[in-house]
Amino acid sequence: MTDLEKCMESLIVIFHRYADEDGDGRTLTKKELKKLVEKELPTFLKTQQNPKTVDLILKDLDQNKDDKLDFEEFLPLVVGLSLACDKCYMLHQKKGKK
Amino acid sequence: MTDLEKCMESLIVIFHRYADEDGDGRTLTKKELKKLVEKELPTFLKTQQNPKTVDLILKDLDQNKDDKLDFEEFLPLVVGLSLACDKCYMLHQKKGKK
Repeated sequence: MTDLEKCMESLIVIFHRYADEDGDGRTLTKKELKKLVEKELPTFLKTQQNPKTVDLILKDLDQNKDDKLDFEEFLPLVVGLSLACDKCYMLHQKKGKK
Repeated sequence: MTDLEKCMESLIVIFHRYADEDGDGRTLTKKELKKLVEKELPTFLKTQQNPKTVDLILKDLDQNKDDKLDFEEFLPLVVGLSLACDKCYMLHQKKGKK
């Protein structure tokens, strides 16, 4: 398997690791999303001063307003954080070249 | 580092592994995109009957029409393929439960 294939597999496995907890593996409930963010994104969570971070993420990503996130609704979180990380990476590279 | 953090790092590293080839690490040229798809997504490429697959991907994702993909334009490819893979995964799970 290539690195990019491994990465996509990993996204699916991580999502279902948490989504499966209540027996319905198609969606993350708020409780499951909270656990995912706490366990998988501890560094991000620490930077957020707002104790309602998980509520805000859910509200922001929940397109069909069912108070749950399916895989399609979850992916923009990964995209947003990856973009933010990439900006840092590029900035770092620039500094390194100076 | 958590699994999800590793995954996001991997996305950034893979993108820049190919984008850096011409010295401009911010974007994938068509040539770089072709190499990325050939090396990282060989299974996907085999399923595509169209020899112009890479041209179609570029046209589809190139939001600002500069014939290159930056990281933000590249991510929807990963999202789309991950969603397709997840649908297969869910189908597989269902069959397993029967």
